[in-house]
Amino acid sequence: MQLHIVKIGGKVVDNELMLQEILKGFIADPNPKILIHGGGKGATDLAERLGVPARMVNGRRITDDATLEIAVMVYAGWFNKKLVSALQAGGCNAFGMSGADGNVIQAHKRPVGEIDFGWVGDIDSVDAESLRHLLLARFTPVICAITHDGKGQLLNTNADTIASKVAQAMSDHYDVTLSFCFEKPGVLMDSEDNATVIPRIDKAGFLQLQEEGVVHTGMLPKLENAFSAASAGVRKVRVCGPDTFGQPDGGTIIY
Amino acid sequence: MQLHIVKIGGKVVDNELMLQEILKGFIADPNPKILIHGGGKGATDLAERLGVPARMVNGRRITDDATLEIAVMVYAGWFNKKLVSALQAGGCNAFGMSGADGNVIQAHKRPVGEIDFGWVGDIDSVDAESLRHLLLARFTPVICAITHDGKGQLLNTNADTIASKVAQAMSDHYDVTLSFCFEKPGVLMDSEDNATVIPRIDKAGFLQLQEEGVVHTGMLPKLENAFSAASAGVRKVRVCGPDTFGQPDGGTIIY
Repeated sequence: MQLHIVKIGGKVVDNELMLQEILKGFIADPNPKILIHGGGKGATDLAERLGVPARMVNGRRITDDATLEIAVMVYAGWFNKKLVSALQAGGCNAFGMSGADGNVIQAHKRPVGEIDFGWVGDIDSVDAESLRHLLLARFTPVICAITHDGKGQLLNTNADTIASKVAQAMSDHYDVTLSFCFEKPGVLMDSEDNATVIPRIDKAGFLQLQEEGVVHTGMLPKLENAFSAASAGVRKVRVCGPDTFGQPDGGTIIY
Repeated sequence: MQLHIVKIGGKVVDNELMLQEILKGFIADPNPKILIHGGGKGATDLAERLGVPARMVNGRRITDDATLEIAVMVYAGWFNKKLVSALQAGGCNAFGMSGADGNVIQAHKRPVGEIDFGWVGDIDSVDAESLRHLLLARFTPVICAITHDGKGQLLNTNADTIASKVAQAMSDHYDVTLSFCFEKPGVLMDSEDNATVIPRIDKAGFLQLQEEGVVHTGMLPKLENAFSAASAGVRKVRVCGPDTFGQPDGGTIIY
């Protein structure tokens, strides 16, 4: 049986038009499906309004107590429930959740190396059986990027990594397609030109694109998560955007 | 089959010791169970920090756009996920949700009469079948006091009313006990003396206690919700607190 897992992030989450476009396609999909979302800049905005400073170490953001509380409020609270109510209005029986709910995604605090990232979680396990129970009850899980350690600590976790790990875990039961949706139509040869979508990238091509400097910064971890899923049994993995999401092979296929 | 529905509210939600005491008893209960929670003063605190004024009309609080967003962030976000992670740490497979999730509680905006309460929802229906799916999958639903109208609008809803309506809906399938937990050990003859718990109150007794001024203000709607559940098939309804929650007949039985 098919299962479509869609991760939305980047500017899509903050752009009402792009978001509506992708939700429309998501709602129209008759297959069992899961939506996974990042938080956009809502958490940064709320932190600013509350006067909570962004703590950075070596250019990396630290999740301290106050930042974690803000992330949980914005991701698991406002944004997750806004998405659920919008999907419900479109006839999709969405069920919002974090990784703590049903112990679906258990993680541990990232070990302190050169940097102590604070309450950032690296994933230990995804409970595919629990997600399957929800799908069999005809719910559409909508998962935010908050996990827990099973000992009472909530953790901030990268949404691309959650998407990749959930897709891998579900591949034992389903024929999984994983779509990473962001504001561009796919991986671009020229980041300024939406007409330069690279249709397919394999591991060798990825290394070459890295060397040529075509993919860098934010796109690197996204593609690493995509390759990690593709090499672990996920049938189809792609990077796409509002315009290409609706086409089955739209965007860039990662294989 | 038995089902225990526990509503926590009042000062219990803001008092770490009382909350731990009740969660301990809740975790130890081997029956299928549902936790329903109010928000405590977290939303008021966040509104103050954000400089969002409390809009009052005739002494009643109005839920405007900004207040709704705060309520969703605090109730469905931080407090719901804090409860879920604490229950998970205690070995209870908690699953946090709002009424929008799985369309479990559908409501409509309260009609504008003398007062426009804003985004306050009055409940239309509880989907007992969806909650049953969760219970059969061995999840423990943890429901916050946010609902939706099915058309994309989230709504702030009284947690006591949610508890009463959920208990009524589940009574078709289960032998339901509904416990309203707050900071006192039960309904008190003398609100200053915890030793004056009234063991049982029926409808006639309730009217008399009202006339005598023993129950008033906040306790009135709570007892009305309790009686509404008791008269609609809920097997046992009680009002209790941290000290009486653990005793099967502790607190005040409403019948």
